[in-house]
Amino acid sequence: MTDKTTSLQPSALAYVPFVSVDDMMKNVHAIGVEAFIRGLAEYIEQDFLRWESFDKKPRIPAHAPQGVIELMPTSDGKTFGFKYVNGHPGNTQDGRQTVTGFGVLADLSNGYPVLFTEMTILTALRTAATSALAAKYLAPERSRTMAVIGNGAQSDFQCLGFKALLGITEIRAYDIDPAASVRLARNLAGSGLNVTICKSPEDAIEGAQIITTVTADKRCNTILTDNMVGAGVHINAVGGDCPGKTELHKDILLRSDIFVEFPPQTRIEGEIQQLDADSPVTELWQVYSGQLPGRTSRDQITLFDSVGFAIEDFAALRFLKDLLPRTGHYSKLDLLADPDDPRDLFGMLIRSKEQGNGAAA
Amino acid sequence: MTDKTTSLQPSALAYVPFVSVDDMMKNVHAIGVEAFIRGLAEYIEQDFLRWESFDKKPRIPAHAPQGVIELMPTSDGKTFGFKYVNGHPGNTQDGRQTVTGFGVLADLSNGYPVLFTEMTILTALRTAATSALAAKYLAPERSRTMAVIGNGAQSDFQCLGFKALLGITEIRAYDIDPAASVRLARNLAGSGLNVTICKSPEDAIEGAQIITTVTADKRCNTILTDNMVGAGVHINAVGGDCPGKTELHKDILLRSDIFVEFPPQTRIEGEIQQLDADSPVTELWQVYSGQLPGRTSRDQITLFDSVGFAIEDFAALRFLKDLLPRTGHYSKLDLLADPDDPRDLFGMLIRSKEQGNGAAA
Repeated sequence: MTDKTTSLQPSALAYVPFVSVDDMMKNVHAIGVEAFIRGLAEYIEQDFLRWESFDKKPRIPAHAPQGVIELMPTSDGKTFGFKYVNGHPGNTQDGRQTVTGFGVLADLSNGYPVLFTEMTILTALRTAATSALAAKYLAPERSRTMAVIGNGAQSDFQCLGFKALLGITEIRAYDIDPAASVRLARNLAGSGLNVTICKSPEDAIEGAQIITTVTADKRCNTILTDNMVGAGVHINAVGGDCPGKTELHKDILLRSDIFVEFPPQTRIEGEIQQLDADSPVTELWQVYSGQLPGRTSRDQITLFDSVGFAIEDFAALRFLKDLLPRTGHYSKLDLLADPDDPRDLFGMLIRSKEQGNGAAA
Repeated sequence: MTDKTTSLQPSALAYVPFVSVDDMMKNVHAIGVEAFIRGLAEYIEQDFLRWESFDKKPRIPAHAPQGVIELMPTSDGKTFGFKYVNGHPGNTQDGRQTVTGFGVLADLSNGYPVLFTEMTILTALRTAATSALAAKYLAPERSRTMAVIGNGAQSDFQCLGFKALLGITEIRAYDIDPAASVRLARNLAGSGLNVTICKSPEDAIEGAQIITTVTADKRCNTILTDNMVGAGVHINAVGGDCPGKTELHKDILLRSDIFVEFPPQTRIEGEIQQLDADSPVTELWQVYSGQLPGRTSRDQITLFDSVGFAIEDFAALRFLKDLLPRTGHYSKLDLLADPDDPRDLFGMLIRSKEQGNGAAA
C-alpha cells in the first residue's frame, strides 16, 4: 500500500506468452518451414516414446448442424495441454476457414498457463510432421516420388514435410479442381520439389512410392479403388478424419497393414470405421519404440490412417514454447489476476478504481 | 495478389475480442460492482430458465498432487462456451492465486471464438451473483443481516452481491485469522454495508437471517454445528466445493431443505457428498421457473449447496460480451489465421515471408 502505482503494474506472474497468427508465421520463417516440421516431428516422436505416461482422453465435442467444436486435452502428469478446434465444412462460403484452432500449455503443479497460441497454422504443420514421421518407419526405402490426391490447404505442408523427413523430390498432384493443383505447384515453386500436375488419380500414382490422400469432402468417398494400389506402396491417408468421412475403398484396407495413432479414436474417425471393431491395427508408438515392426517386406502395403491426436498437439505446443526464447516472436497477455495479496482479489479491484480506471468509462 | 501489403493485414475475421485483467477491472468500474453482479444474476437466471436447452457435461479434470486443472464446457446449441480453471491450495505460498481462470465464447454455427477473457475476477463475481440469486428465492423476506464465516478472497463479492440483490445492510464477519476480517471490513468501507467483526462463529450468526460459509480449507470441516443453526435461516454454503471438502455438520443437512445447481455434480463436490446418493434435493432451475417452490415457511431452514456450474460461466461470458460494446474495454487478438483464399493457408505463410517477416528473426 506504500507504493500504489507500482503495486498496480501486473507482476510477471500475471502474464502469459501469446503467439498470434503473425507471430506464428514469424516463428516459422525464423528457422524455415522444413526445419520447423523436423522439429515438430522430433517432439512428436519423443512424446510417442513416452506414450504410457499420458492421460489419453477422448475429444470433447459440441455439435451443431453446421459443424463441431472440440476440446482436445491431455496431460503427462506435469504439463497440461489442450487444443480448441472447430470443423465447419461450409465455412469457406463466407470466407472463413473450415478448421481453426488455438491451444494452451499449462504447468500442472500450479495450474498457471505458460503458453497461449494460435493453432490453425501450427496444426497444419504438426499434421504434416505426424505423417512424415510415420512414413519414416513405414514407407519404402529411398522413396522419392509422392502422389498427392487432394491439393487443398493441408497438401503444401504434407509435401514439405515429406521432403524434409524422407527426401521426397517428386510430387504428382491431382485434384478434382485443377486450380487447386496449380495453386499447390505455385506455392512449392522454389522449394526444391518438382511438381507434376496430373489429370487423374491413376495418373498421379504412376511410379509413386508414397500415396497421400488429403481430400476435404465430408462424406464417404472412394479416392482410391483397390485395383489402383500396387504392391509395396505406403498410403498416407490424411483426409478421412471423422465419422462418415473416408477416402479409401474397403478392399484396400483389407490388403494393407494399418498403423494408427490411438485405436479408440481412429476406429470412430478414421478409414478403419469401415472395418470390424476388432480388425488388426498397429499403434505407431509401439513402432517408434521398437516393440513392433514397421515395414517388414518390399511388397507390403502400409497404411497410416491419420486422424490427429491430442498428444501431437501437446508436442507441438512444447516445441513452440521451447522455440520462443530463441526467436522472441511472441507478446505477453495480461491474463492472470495477480493481487499483491493473493487472498485480496477484491482489494486489487477497488485499488484499480482509485487509480482512475473507473474514469476511463 | 494485386495489393500484397493490404492482403497481409489480418481481416476483421482474424480478430477475437480479448478482455485482460485490466480490462475486466475497467468493465466492472464502468457500471459499478453491484450493477455488474445484478447484470450477471439476470443472465444466470435467464440461462437457468432455459436449463433443458443446454448440453450439460461433467467438468474434465487433469490432476496433479498439487491440484487440478479443469475444463468446463457447455453449449445451448447455438453458442459454445468453456472455462479453464485451476485449483491449487498451496499456490499462495509462492504468491500465486489458488484459483485462476479464463474463458471462451464461440459461435457454434461457424466455430469461431467471439470472446476470450480472463475469468479469475469474473468467476468471483458470478459466484456471488449465483449465491445472491438463489437467496432471492430462498432467504427469509426482508433479510437484512448476513453472517459471513470465512473472510477470504470470495467474501467481499458475496457481501456486495447480497447487498445488491437482497438489500442486506449488516455483515457479521468471522474468520479464524482476524486479519482477514479486518481486510474485509476495510474493503467494504464506503460500500454502504456495516461490518461487525465477530470473535466466534456463534457470535457471527447472532441475529443473522442468512449465514454464508465460505472458508477455504481443503478438508472436511465443521464450520457450523447443528445446535448453532436456528429455525428459519438461509444457509449459503459456498466453501465446500470438491470431494473431501465440506463445511457443515451432516445433521444440519438433514434438517434443511437443500437446493443445488446440478445434482450429479453437487453430489460429488458439494456438502451433500455427506448424504446418501438419493437424498432429496431441489434443482434451482425448477425453482426459478416456478415448477417447484423455494422457501415455503418461516421456520424452514433453506440451504444452497453451491459448487459452481458451467452454465453460470456461460451466462457470465454472455453478459460480458453484451457489455463490451457499451464500455469499449477490450482489445483485439490476432488469433485466427485468415488467408484471402481459405484453401490457401500455406500461401498466406509464404507471402508473409516475402513481406519481410522472415527478416525479423
